[in-house]
Amino acid sequence: MASQGLISDFEQMLGKENVFSSEADLQSYSYDSAVLEPVIPSLVVRPTNSEQLAAAVTKLYENGIPMTVRGSGTNLSGGTIPDKSETVVILTTGLTRILEINSNDLYAVVEPGVITAQFAQEVAKSNLFYPPDPGSQAVSTIGGNIAENAGGLRGLKYGVTKDYVMGLEFFDATGALVKTGSRTVKCVTGYNLAGMMIQSEGTLGVISQAILKLVPPPKASRALMAVFDNIQNAAEAVAGIIAAHVLPCTLEFLDNNTIVRVDDFTHAGLPREAGAILLIEVDGHPAQVEDDAAAVEKVLKENKATAVHIPKDAAEKFKLWEARRMALPVLARCRPTTVLEDATVPRSQIPAMMKAVNEIAAKYKVEVGTFGHAGDGNLHPTFLCDKRDKEEYHRVELAIDEMFDVAINLQGTLSGEHGIGTAKSKWMEKETSRGTILFSQRLRRALDPKGLLNPSKLVGI
Amino acid sequence: MASQGLISDFEQMLGKENVFSSEADLQSYSYDSAVLEPVIPSLVVRPTNSEQLAAAVTKLYENGIPMTVRGSGTNLSGGTIPDKSETVVILTTGLTRILEINSNDLYAVVEPGVITAQFAQEVAKSNLFYPPDPGSQAVSTIGGNIAENAGGLRGLKYGVTKDYVMGLEFFDATGALVKTGSRTVKCVTGYNLAGMMIQSEGTLGVISQAILKLVPPPKASRALMAVFDNIQNAAEAVAGIIAAHVLPCTLEFLDNNTIVRVDDFTHAGLPREAGAILLIEVDGHPAQVEDDAAAVEKVLKENKATAVHIPKDAAEKFKLWEARRMALPVLARCRPTTVLEDATVPRSQIPAMMKAVNEIAAKYKVEVGTFGHAGDGNLHPTFLCDKRDKEEYHRVELAIDEMFDVAINLQGTLSGEHGIGTAKSKWMEKETSRGTILFSQRLRRALDPKGLLNPSKLVGI
Repeated sequence: MASQGLISDFEQMLGKENVFSSEADLQSYSYDSAVLEPVIPSLVVRPTNSEQLAAAVTKLYENGIPMTVRGSGTNLSGGTIPDKSETVVILTTGLTRILEINSNDLYAVVEPGVITAQFAQEVAKSNLFYPPDPGSQAVSTIGGNIAENAGGLRGLKYGVTKDYVMGLEFFDATGALVKTGSRTVKCVTGYNLAGMMIQSEGTLGVISQAILKLVPPPKASRALMAVFDNIQNAAEAVAGIIAAHVLPCTLEFLDNNTIVRVDDFTHAGLPREAGAILLIEVDGHPAQVEDDAAAVEKVLKENKATAVHIPKDAAEKFKLWEARRMALPVLARCRPTTVLEDATVPRSQIPAMMKAVNEIAAKYKVEVGTFGHAGDGNLHPTFLCDKRDKEEYHRVELAIDEMFDVAINLQGTLSGEHGIGTAKSKWMEKETSRGTILFSQRLRRALDPKGLLNPSKLVGI
Repeated sequence: MASQGLISDFEQMLGKENVFSSEADLQSYSYDSAVLEPVIPSLVVRPTNSEQLAAAVTKLYENGIPMTVRGSGTNLSGGTIPDKSETVVILTTGLTRILEINSNDLYAVVEPGVITAQFAQEVAKSNLFYPPDPGSQAVSTIGGNIAENAGGLRGLKYGVTKDYVMGLEFFDATGALVKTGSRTVKCVTGYNLAGMMIQSEGTLGVISQAILKLVPPPKASRALMAVFDNIQNAAEAVAGIIAAHVLPCTLEFLDNNTIVRVDDFTHAGLPREAGAILLIEVDGHPAQVEDDAAAVEKVLKENKATAVHIPKDAAEKFKLWEARRMALPVLARCRPTTVLEDATVPRSQIPAMMKAVNEIAAKYKVEVGTFGHAGDGNLHPTFLCDKRDKEEYHRVELAIDEMFDVAINLQGTLSGEHGIGTAKSKWMEKETSRGTILFSQRLRRALDPKGLLNPSKLVGI
C-alpha cells in the first residue's frame, strides 16, 4: 500500500477519480491473463493526457518506485503483473484519443489506450484498413499491442503490429520525451527506437503516442473451411499452400478436441468427427481472390481434405470465424487452469510440430487442444489442467519444456506473439545465446538505471 | 598506420591476402559517397567467415582500437568514413555466402557482404522476390542495406530493407555473439534487437548473418510515363494517386533540369521540354494491374498530364527506368561537387515541398536538379556546385538548412533513406528532442562501453 503522501500527490496531479488505492481496486490489477501468481500493487493511477503521463513517470522515477504500465491486461506471459508490492500500476485506459486519421497519407496518430477493434472500426469509416487483429482485439489496447508486438489472424499476409508502427513518442524511465519515426513512409533519422520499443514489454519506456500505418482495404475476399480426417493431412495442406506461394490473409487450424468443445458450446454446426479443420480466407482484387481460392482448393484436395465448404454469406462466415475466436474461451471453461502456449515454427515444419505436440501430450498424459495461426507456423497448443493438482501441473510443465525443445530444434521460437514476460524468460538463453541475454541486460540497465520499468520481465535487469 | 605487431596478428588471423596496409589501400578506404573530408584509416582487414569476423572484433576491442565496418562504401552520409586515423576498417566483402534460400518458408539466410542485386537475382531463380532495390543495388551489400535501412524505387508498395529483416546474428562491441529474430514469420522472443540494429550505421554491433523475408513475385506489371508542363501538376498527381488508394510499386519523379541533363547523356528520347515527368509502375494480379493502371491514368489526366506514355515492350521500359537510374550519375558529372539530399515529407506535402525546394534554390542562387521517390514523399534535391568555391558552397549549405526546416515544418524528416552519419547529426535534435539524443547516447554507451564502433556517427558517443 502506497504512502498517504504519494496518494495525495497523485490525486493532485491526476484528480481523485484517477487514483485507486482500495483493496478491491488493487486486487483487480494484481493479475493478467497468464497462469502466474498475482502480485498486489501499492497503487493504481490513470493519467488522462500525455503531460499527466510524463508527470506520473517522473514522480515514480524520483521516488524510486517500480512501475508496470497496463492497458487491458490481456497479456498472456505476465507482462502486466506487478513485479512487487511496491509497484505502482500506470493504466493507459485514460489515454484513448484518436488524434488523426489521415486518408491522404495513409496513417493515423493515436494514444496508447485506444482499443484495437474500435480503432479498426474508426479507420474503416475512412475506407481504410488497420490489419492487426489479435484475438483480444475487442478489449486490447494499441499500446499493449505495441509493447507485445501482438499478432492475430491476419499476420500471414498482412504482418503483425510491428509492421504498422511508423513512429512513437514515449517517455523514458526519467520522464524525458523521446520521439522516433515520422509521418513519412521512410525515415532513417536516428536509431530505429520505435523498432526497439516494439515487444519490449514495458521495460524501456512508456509509450504516449503512436503513428500507425494504414492500407487501402481489400476489394474482395472469400472464406473456405476445409475438413480433414487427421491433423497430419491438415498440417501438410498448410505447408502446401505456402509452398504454392499463395498468401491467404487467414489460415487457421483447429484440432478435434477444440472442434468438439467449441461446437458443444456454440452449436455452430462444426464437423465434430473431423480430425482437424482449416479456416481460410483469401482477399485482394476480385480476380486475385478467384485465382487464390482455386489454388487453395487444389492444394486442399491434394492433401486429402474430405470436404471444402464455402460459406454462402457473411453471416455463415461470421459463425465459422466466431468458432475460431471462441476456441480459447471455450477450452478455458473445461478445466480450472488453461495454459495457452505459443511456440512457433517455420511453416513447412507445421506437420512435424503438430505430430510432436500430440506425442508429447500422450507421453505426459496431459490434455491438449490445439488451434492457431497455422499459416504463420504459430500454433497455440492449449493445456487443460488444474494447477492445484501439483502432480498434474508438473506433467504439464514437463510437456511444455519438451515442446519448446522441439520448436527450437525445428528452427522455431518460444513465442510467436504472446511475449516472454516472466513466463518464458528461463528458456530464452537456449534459443538465443548468453551474449544475447547480457547484451539485452546492458541495454535496459542503461535506459532504466534505477531498474523501475517492469524490472523482472523479459531478461530481467 | 597500424603497428607491425597488429598487422602480423591480423595476417595470422585472416591470411596475408586479407590485410591491407599500403598507402594506396588505406587511401581507397578513406572516403565513401558522401561529400565529406576523407580520413585515412590505420589498417583494412577482410574476414572471410563469421569466426574470423568475431576474432577481428574481439582483437580490436581488446586493444581499444576504433572500427568502421564497410561493405561497398556507397554510403551517402559518411557512415563508412573512418572516424580517426587509428580506425581499422573491417570489410564485409569477404563474407559473401548465400547460406539458404528457402522456397517453402519464403526466407533466405545470407552473410553481410552479399551484393543486393546478385542476391535478388539468385532469389528470382527460385521464383521468389526480394523487393528492396536501393539505387546502388548493383554494388551495395545486404549488410550495408541493413545498417542504413536502405530504401529504393519499390518502397512505396513493398517497403524498405527494415520490412524484410526477420532475424540477425551479430557480434557486439566485445565480440560476443547476439542472436535475434527467427526463421519464423512471427517471433517475440526477447527484444526486437534486429529492429534496433537496422539503420544503426555500424554503431551497435557487427552483423554476421541475416534472415531475410522473401515474397512471391507479382504476376504482372505495367509501366507508365506521364509528362507535365510544370512540377506542381506532377506533384499534385502524386498526392492524388495515393489519395485514390492506389499503391504503385514505383512512382518516381524527375524535374526538367534532371530530364534535360539525363537526355543529353543517354539520348533516351525523354521529353526535354517537360516541366517534370513521373515514371510509374503498377504490379500484381493481371486484373489488378489493369484496374490500377486505369485509376492512375485517370488521376494523371485530372492533374493535367500532357501525355501518358505506355512503353510498348520491356526494352523500352528498361530505357525509361535507366534514365531514372542515371539521374544521379549524370547530375554528378555536371559540376565538381554533388550534394544529394534526402529530406522526406508525407506524400500529400510533395507539392509544397517541391515548391519550397525551387524557391530556396532561387533565393540562394544555387543549381538544383530534383528527382526521387515521389510516391514515398522522398525526393532527392541534388545541389550541383564546387566545394572549393567557399562562397558558393556556403550558399548551398544555407539552402540545405532552410530545406530541412521546411521538411520538418511539413511533418517530414531529415532523411528518408540515406542515413545521418556525420553529415546530418547536427540537425537531429531539431526533428526529435533533447531527450531523444540523450536516450540514444545512453543506449550506445551501454552497448559499446569503449566507444569503438563508428564512434562519431549518428548521435555521437
